[in-house]
Amino acid sequence: MTASHRPSGRSPEQLREVRLTRQYTKHAEGSVLVEFGDTRVLCTASIEEKVPGFLKGKGQGWLTAEYGMLPRSTHTRMDREAAKGKQSGRTQEIQRLIGRALRAAFDLEAFGERTLQLDCDVLQADGGTRTAAITGAMVAAYDAFAGLKSQGLIEAIPVKHFVAAISVGVFKGVPVLDLDYPEDSDCDTDMNVVMTDAGHFVEVQGTAEGAAFDRATLNALLDLAQQGIATLNGLQRQALGL
Amino acid sequence: MTASHRPSGRSPEQLREVRLTRQYTKHAEGSVLVEFGDTRVLCTASIEEKVPGFLKGKGQGWLTAEYGMLPRSTHTRMDREAAKGKQSGRTQEIQRLIGRALRAAFDLEAFGERTLQLDCDVLQADGGTRTAAITGAMVAAYDAFAGLKSQGLIEAIPVKHFVAAISVGVFKGVPVLDLDYPEDSDCDTDMNVVMTDAGHFVEVQGTAEGAAFDRATLNALLDLAQQGIATLNGLQRQALGL
Amino acid sequence: MTASHRPSGRSPEQLREVRLTRQYTKHAEGSVLVEFGDTRVLCTASIEEKVPGFLKGKGQGWLTAEYGMLPRSTHTRMDREAAKGKQSGRTQEIQRLIGRALRAAFDLEAFGERTLQLDCDVLQADGGTRTAAITGAMVAAYDAFAGLKSQGLIEAIPVKHFVAAISVGVFKGVPVLDLDYPEDSDCDTDMNVVMTDAGHFVEVQGTAEGAAFDRATLNALLDLAQQGIATLNGLQRQALGL
Amino acid sequence: MTASHRPSGRSPEQLREVRLTRQYTKHAEGSVLVEFGDTRVLCTASIEEKVPGFLKGKGQGWLTAEYGMLPRSTHTRMDREAAKGKQSGRTQEIQRLIGRALRAAFDLEAFGERTLQLDCDVLQADGGTRTAAITGAMVAAYDAFAGLKSQGLIEAIPVKHFVAAISVGVFKGVPVLDLDYPEDSDCDTDMNVVMTDAGHFVEVQGTAEGAAFDRATLNALLDLAQQGIATLNGLQRQALGL
Amino acid sequence: MTASHRPSGRSPEQLREVRLTRQYTKHAEGSVLVEFGDTRVLCTASIEEKVPGFLKGKGQGWLTAEYGMLPRSTHTRMDREAAKGKQSGRTQEIQRLIGRALRAAFDLEAFGERTLQLDCDVLQADGGTRTAAITGAMVAAYDAFAGLKSQGLIEAIPVKHFVAAISVGVFKGVPVLDLDYPEDSDCDTDMNVVMTDAGHFVEVQGTAEGAAFDRATLNALLDLAQQGIATLNGLQRQALGL
Amino acid sequence: MTASHRPSGRSPEQLREVRLTRQYTKHAEGSVLVEFGDTRVLCTASIEEKVPGFLKGKGQGWLTAEYGMLPRSTHTRMDREAAKGKQSGRTQEIQRLIGRALRAAFDLEAFGERTLQLDCDVLQADGGTRTAAITGAMVAAYDAFAGLKSQGLIEAIPVKHFVAAISVGVFKGVPVLDLDYPEDSDCDTDMNVVMTDAGHFVEVQGTAEGAAFDRATLNALLDLAQQGIATLNGLQRQALGL
Repeated sequence: MTASHRPSGRSPEQLREVRLTRQYTKHAEGSVLVEFGDTRVLCTASIEEKVPGFLKGKGQGWLTAEYGMLPRSTHTRMDREAAKGKQSGRTQEIQRLIGRALRAAFDLEAFGERTLQLDCDVLQADGGTRTAAITGAMVAAYDAFAGLKSQGLIEAIPVKHFVAAISVGVFKGVPVLDLDYPEDSDCDTDMNVVMTDAGHFVEVQGTAEGAAFDRATLNALLDLAQQGIATLNGLQRQALGL
Repeated sequence: MTASHRPSGRSPEQLREVRLTRQYTKHAEGSVLVEFGDTRVLCTASIEEKVPGFLKGKGQGWLTAEYGMLPRSTHTRMDREAAKGKQSGRTQEIQRLIGRALRAAFDLEAFGERTLQLDCDVLQADGGTRTAAITGAMVAAYDAFAGLKSQGLIEAIPVKHFVAAISVGVFKGVPVLDLDYPEDSDCDTDMNVVMTDAGHFVEVQGTAEGAAFDRATLNALLDLAQQGIATLNGLQRQALGL
Repeated sequence: MTASHRPSGRSPEQLREVRLTRQYTKHAEGSVLVEFGDTRVLCTASIEEKVPGFLKGKGQGWLTAEYGMLPRSTHTRMDREAAKGKQSGRTQEIQRLIGRALRAAFDLEAFGERTLQLDCDVLQADGGTRTAAITGAMVAAYDAFAGLKSQGLIEAIPVKHFVAAISVGVFKGVPVLDLDYPEDSDCDTDMNVVMTDAGHFVEVQGTAEGAAFDRATLNALLDLAQQGIATLNGLQRQALGL
Repeated sequence: MTASHRPSGRSPEQLREVRLTRQYTKHAEGSVLVEFGDTRVLCTASIEEKVPGFLKGKGQGWLTAEYGMLPRSTHTRMDREAAKGKQSGRTQEIQRLIGRALRAAFDLEAFGERTLQLDCDVLQADGGTRTAAITGAMVAAYDAFAGLKSQGLIEAIPVKHFVAAISVGVFKGVPVLDLDYPEDSDCDTDMNVVMTDAGHFVEVQGTAEGAAFDRATLNALLDLAQQGIATLNGLQRQALGL
Repeated sequence: MTASHRPSGRSPEQLREVRLTRQYTKHAEGSVLVEFGDTRVLCTASIEEKVPGFLKGKGQGWLTAEYGMLPRSTHTRMDREAAKGKQSGRTQEIQRLIGRALRAAFDLEAFGERTLQLDCDVLQADGGTRTAAITGAMVAAYDAFAGLKSQGLIEAIPVKHFVAAISVGVFKGVPVLDLDYPEDSDCDTDMNVVMTDAGHFVEVQGTAEGAAFDRATLNALLDLAQQGIATLNGLQRQALGL
Repeated sequence: MTASHRPSGRSPEQLREVRLTRQYTKHAEGSVLVEFGDTRVLCTASIEEKVPGFLKGKGQGWLTAEYGMLPRSTHTRMDREAAKGKQSGRTQEIQRLIGRALRAAFDLEAFGERTLQLDCDVLQADGGTRTAAITGAMVAAYDAFAGLKSQGLIEAIPVKHFVAAISVGVFKGVPVLDLDYPEDSDCDTDMNVVMTDAGHFVEVQGTAEGAAFDRATLNALLDLAQQGIATLNGLQRQALGL
């Protein structure tokens, strides 16, 4: 048996321990604490009885997401975005990604003129906050729609696919699944993948942090991601009792 | 035995259940989840090896605080301050209060040219978030200073007093301790009190929400507060094993 | 006869000279220059024929306040808030206080769907600007409502109480009334009190600047404040010819 | 004798009553209330012992200006720029004009590495606030430099010219001097002129509000302005006792 | 023949080569690249089927302008205003000037409840960007209105006058027309003039950069401007085939 | 021969006409107008003799990028970001992408403590502005470095790879190269790919606009991109005369 080259001792294709805790807070229609190892993100789903201006009167709904990190969720304290008066480019990029990913999961025409607002707030960061956020937001959104259904406001939960997300990367020359912070800050290639439970891609975002990467590496990374996401889809269903 | 007039069934002088969980997150030098019933605030204390410009070269330290609410910590979702691009007047008022309260607790001249940065983020709101924040921040700050001491960077924990805070108010004509949200939104007078473990006042902030209040009522409220804060001081020491 | 310990030579319970000059500017419905010694604040009251969104169609009015300091109202020039692009936390705290205090003075349901907008701008600061502002704004607001009445738009001036405000503090160990700047910048405890002419409290905001203060001190300060506010109420009525 | 066509009854070449009150407030190095009829502007001059970055180490000084209107200085209340979070284009245009005008009055190389900061705040507006501001700021700046001289920090008051400013315009077909608000809001051409006491131009800013104007009109307006500014220069010297 | 004293070798009354290229971009209703020598400004005119709030329901149109410089249109890179989060005072001053100038050219009551939005973006700056912008925007606006006419939405192009603009100044003691950057940064007096094709003034903005200037100089500068603008009006008509 | 299914009549693997015009403006160290059909982006490269704070004293350089669209570069006018006071999430996402892509092209340790600042401004948009920007910025940056070399400030142009970018997508069921606006607004999958001239990936960003896509589609798209980028690399070298 060979020792792992990963700081955590995980094998290359091994996820961190993933936990999905529903009803973590009491006010939101859906509220899930998602943990990928030491990464902890609180995902809340709020139903609002209105849609943005560009959709008014069209009879369909909307889904959007916001993302934030608590100032000391990280190794060294980050400035509070509310105090600085603006969200960073990174924050906006991530919240746009979460929104697109989740809009792929639900049928926007099947829940009336309502907005599902997701808030993904990082309580503790250890790499992979955006992929944890997407994976947890899926469950929170499902719960919020289930609430609408149980109130008789919609006939069925308007889910099209379960989506989940995972990061993959090349760490010390080896493709690995679900990078934690020590890996993330020292890897050559970093890719975030969002897939459906049918094994199809919703988002693929790969960046060569150091050297550019070749097609074979890309393929190896996508193989890892596909396998990891299948596991995450199972955990989502299990958390929801489906 | 008479039934309580409070929605929670508490007696007028009864605190909610208070919990102080240390080391709630792993990166911050001090990290405390404080719960006053369903109100949950994450208080982190970060040590930064610098001071604001107006203190540079003076050989003393600084302590400051920021406060935020997660968008769905409340009954209906609030706009995210980072997305709006500014902190509300309420937020600024509260974070200034927390900073003043905690500066009264520690000797700023006894920990070198460092800043203790407190972040109080509300995960779930049910009334009394600012008083919970002050009470929890005291413990987080103590832990952060204890860390400096255990590294040999300071000789003693520079604590002058333990401070804690509680709200009091007149609910349905009766002075009560530690208002929860149903009481807070329907009370006549609302007062937040910060005191030291010596029973002295650091802050008294009383507001007549409906009718103006008389001196006797003020006195009754202060009596309740003094008793509640003594209990909180005991819980702080117990949490710290002192 | 003992010499005063106060820089101004006043006795501990002595107000500065207070002047209330009505119709100081010509456009506003109410316009009062209030002077507490060298502190001068221009308070204007504007009637606007609209209410904020949350009150539309409810048949009641609103009252709100804004506060500002001219950049060189102070000993050393302060940055202009309009140029910095934001109001400081202190500014927001004060304008929220003024608004709450004056909403306690008038019956919001008795002047139709109108907004009374108060603007309190400090021309010269020498301590106690917020208490002067509240005291002057009361008169400006009264004048503005009197104008509505004389136009036949309301039947009676919707005043519930006269409110006034004063600061009290512990200066060189002695409780004193109406702190001026030299006292304010060197005192141990600073408290702002807003009361009605019935002697009831609208706001009590006390802060231990140096050492925490005990209950006896608090009581002495409140006694001073109560007496000072009674005097101010008299001056308000006298200015209005009531 | 013919009746005036001007709402105020003034003859076309007649200024409003102009008053320059020095030492209007006590903290600023120069503080002048300037009144052009009902237009009242408080001009303060502050000396700061620093220069902007682009002048550091060059041994010369700087002079700059800011302008503001109190929210209810006008007929209907204007939004407070500090609350809106930005200065309007008009405000910026005016404060840039004041700065350029006053930089023409003083020798920036003759008062060391200091900044003369002018603040012109409109207490009551009735037309011509920018020209009143320039005229008053000249006196406030002179006073501030006189203070530096009396402290022995500079050898002479670094004045090159006295500058003053006046508006001229075509009202009901007739060129008139010093437009008040009723004229300003109903004139065809509006021109602001800044001149030195030597009769030279520092700024000429003419705008055709309605119909474009011809060269003869321009000449008539400049004649009026030249005469008005000579009067203002006399009043400035008289106010300063020169 | 004497050599020119101008860096470009031009005679004092000589314009730079002026080019007006219509349909420079394809989406805008009017799109003109205007070049005054090396100064290049892209002027687009957009028709929007709405008017600002203060004009709603009045049956008339509006015309407004915005101005910007690409960050590296200048010798040294300027900060991008969008990234800084605000437009400079200079930018606002210029776009207000462009708007006023063009509103003098068209009959706002003759094109319905529409807004003509002008955007003047400097691709390359070499002095005179605001005068080039006005001159080019006139042609772009004309084209946009011609489009409305050809669609049958208005009966006639609502032009009142052709307006154009030019700078004049005193360079090395000599009045010159159309300052380029080397002249602009080293001149004593700088004036921007906007005139109609009838030879009337719309705007005159003269600034003494160094010494104040006398009436004779002002007259010489206006003579130059009048002649230059007549040439520009001819080029505008020629570009439009009128 | 079958007719194309693309609105432009192109075959699926056909690029639009690509033009790279160097020295498009005169001030910047590198200035390239890049055109992908009707998409036109002005890319300037500025050398600044400083680095951001986090790199000071480390002896290495930095490269960063900003992106903007002229308000009427698009079919309907967009609000000007400078006037709105903030850059959109999309803008920030794109400028971050351009920066990462170009940092992969150059050796940041080989040109001293300097910053290469890229500005990519869209004059006309017709799909693919970000890929055109990257492709053009590569040439502008090369030119800027060539200037440093010709001044003897660096010994060699610090290029590691030529990078170029192209979009690919699934339009009406068929994978196509280089989407123009009509395709972009009606495609199922949209992917932007940045590659080096060695055929390695720098960035892969794929989004399922409608249905999620499978691995075979992903592979077909990457094949198209690889071929397109090889062509673009050739055009870059040809433009530079390499």
